[in-house]
Amino acid sequence: MTLLERHDAGGIAHLRLNSPGNLNALSDEMLAALQEQIDALNADRETRVVILSGAGKAFCAGHDLKQMQAARDHEDQGRAYYADLFTRCASVMTGLTRLPQPVIAQVHGIATAAGCQMVASCDMAVAAEGTRFGVNGVNIGLFCSTPMVALSRNIPRKKAFEMLTTGQFLSSEEALAHGLINHAVAPEDLETRTRALAETVAAKLGAAVKIGKSAFYEQMTMGLDEAYAYAGNVMVENMLWRDTDEGITAFLEKRAPDWA
Amino acid sequence: MTLLERHDAGGIAHLRLNSPGNLNALSDEMLAALQEQIDALNADRETRVVILSGAGKAFCAGHDLKQMQAARDHEDQGRAYYADLFTRCASVMTGLTRLPQPVIAQVHGIATAAGCQMVASCDMAVAAEGTRFGVNGVNIGLFCSTPMVALSRNIPRKKAFEMLTTGQFLSSEEALAHGLINHAVAPEDLETRTRALAETVAAKLGAAVKIGKSAFYEQMTMGLDEAYAYAGNVMVENMLWRDTDEGITAFLEKRAPDWA
Amino acid sequence: MTLLERHDAGGIAHLRLNSPGNLNALSDEMLAALQEQIDALNADRETRVVILSGAGKAFCAGHDLKQMQAARDHEDQGRAYYADLFTRCASVMTGLTRLPQPVIAQVHGIATAAGCQMVASCDMAVAAEGTRFGVNGVNIGLFCSTPMVALSRNIPRKKAFEMLTTGQFLSSEEALAHGLINHAVAPEDLETRTRALAETVAAKLGAAVKIGKSAFYEQMTMGLDEAYAYAGNVMVENMLWRDTDEGITAFLEKRAPDWA
Repeated sequence: MTLLERHDAGGIAHLRLNSPGNLNALSDEMLAALQEQIDALNADRETRVVILSGAGKAFCAGHDLKQMQAARDHEDQGRAYYADLFTRCASVMTGLTRLPQPVIAQVHGIATAAGCQMVASCDMAVAAEGTRFGVNGVNIGLFCSTPMVALSRNIPRKKAFEMLTTGQFLSSEEALAHGLINHAVAPEDLETRTRALAETVAAKLGAAVKIGKSAFYEQMTMGLDEAYAYAGNVMVENMLWRDTDEGITAFLEKRAPDWA
Repeated sequence: MTLLERHDAGGIAHLRLNSPGNLNALSDEMLAALQEQIDALNADRETRVVILSGAGKAFCAGHDLKQMQAARDHEDQGRAYYADLFTRCASVMTGLTRLPQPVIAQVHGIATAAGCQMVASCDMAVAAEGTRFGVNGVNIGLFCSTPMVALSRNIPRKKAFEMLTTGQFLSSEEALAHGLINHAVAPEDLETRTRALAETVAAKLGAAVKIGKSAFYEQMTMGLDEAYAYAGNVMVENMLWRDTDEGITAFLEKRAPDWA
Repeated sequence: MTLLERHDAGGIAHLRLNSPGNLNALSDEMLAALQEQIDALNADRETRVVILSGAGKAFCAGHDLKQMQAARDHEDQGRAYYADLFTRCASVMTGLTRLPQPVIAQVHGIATAAGCQMVASCDMAVAAEGTRFGVNGVNIGLFCSTPMVALSRNIPRKKAFEMLTTGQFLSSEEALAHGLINHAVAPEDLETRTRALAETVAAKLGAAVKIGKSAFYEQMTMGLDEAYAYAGNVMVENMLWRDTDEGITAFLEKRAPDWA
């Protein structure tokens, strides 16, 4: 059994966490498998969109607590292991944000702790109605400090604070209203609807989506003038591409662009 | 025919994009006309509020693509022209944000690409129900990188990302829910409702609205302590005005202020 | 009569503004009483959660305008007093955000100007249906520049701008939709529901809630990599606590943690 399945079709790489026995926990092995795919996708010029989903009853329930507890036997009570673990985990989460391809989370069941962080770290998310989202580490004495980084950049602060300090779940309807997900769909439509979204993005000019995604996060933390100077340069480069010339010409001639 | 109509009444300057034949495209000429009005309004002590609307079927459909394509004949394939164009466009967009007067977008039909950016760049927006908002340059291979700067500062990030990479439209209901507009009203009430909002703001003490608007954007990107130090100083100055003394006195005496 | 009542029970400190005659105005005396409690709570290791409410018809109507007007008789027309007043007020507002304990606003009637700022400055808020929220200083010529600092970090910018420049109220439904409050409940349930939320948080491991609250605001303004490095360190420290070991062990053994 492969821990992280990958299925490629039509320029879309579908990664499936495949460890249903522990609700797709982000064990050392799962994090390594994710990092390996992220590294591969960074160099992959064929893939245009990535879908991330989970096998079994849940999307992902966060870290592998048994594995984390085992490190307490180390001479340093696990300090070095934990520091390394959270560095590896952050590398995966920011890696999703920095991939050249848009990443869509396809979420069902539960997405908790680092599992919720992974939803927040993807560029878009589609969830089955009934999915529950939580950053509930506080219930066991471990505040979800790293999931908070991604979550607090997705939803209003008072709602994020409540989730973090009460451990209570957000319903798919609330997740939609607050901006944590893009769509809540019937469970039986989850795969189809997520794939349709991926195909829509995959049909665009790949180079434009790629510079656009990168620019999206780059400009977000800049001041207004800096952001416009930066984004203006991106648009100049974009305009000078042959395919963009063709795209605009085709639009003006009311025909489909020839981007083969 | 004037490309950008201006009608002044009751301290409210109503600017109307008047190029319905190309859906009020932001051509070189339209950008110049907007910049001219922005420069004039910066020095204008009579005008208290600005309304920005579009003649014909749509608010604004973005840049003038024909004009942009023509620049490809230049010796540098248009590079210098495009760099200058996006600089001029950013000057108009940030100019709206930096005007001393609040600017209200009165939106109908469609607001796409730089047209959607203009809505996001205004301080407030009222839209007719049925209006559609999009940053759909990706459909023709030109990612809406500069519109993204304004849009991503108005709505939650996952929704902004989806609009940018799918090219799909936001309905007026969604635009309202996500914060891109302040009100969605019946099309026949659009002009009246926008004007009523403008009149409400125009009836306030002009100097207070002016320092308030400026402080709003200034403090937004500061850390908390810096923002409070800055805003505290603004309040001290505000308190020392004769008209503010009169405003507070009138309130305590339960009468209207004498701000004539 | 005590200006600021404090009632302690079950690790929850309930502070009640008790100046119903002037709608719990933030007079010099009230700000001093709040600062005194904030200083005490900063050193208080028993209290796990703070509730902030108001006696009488309203939560809080902002500054004490009569007191502010009296300072105009000073030799400097009040400049030094106003500068000091806004410094003291900012100290209270940021003090709420920086307390080691989560602070929940229990809101009813009206929360206006600095009263609305106080709601925005609390970590969470529960409001009675029918409560109205406003930053309406503009109506009397005094733009709510300092309330704006807190408000604009809670709700979408176009809605904040509208509140500030029109002086119009937000209903409890709108406040909920835009993220200014966490829950809108029936007036007769306000006390019970706020207390239940406080008890939920108070039942968690106090040290985890404390580092979590602090980390929440610290990481919010950092870039992504810096935020993850910071939050990762917080998680390492959290993991090394004996109580967290017990919390995780108890969870894996499907029993309640022994945190006595």
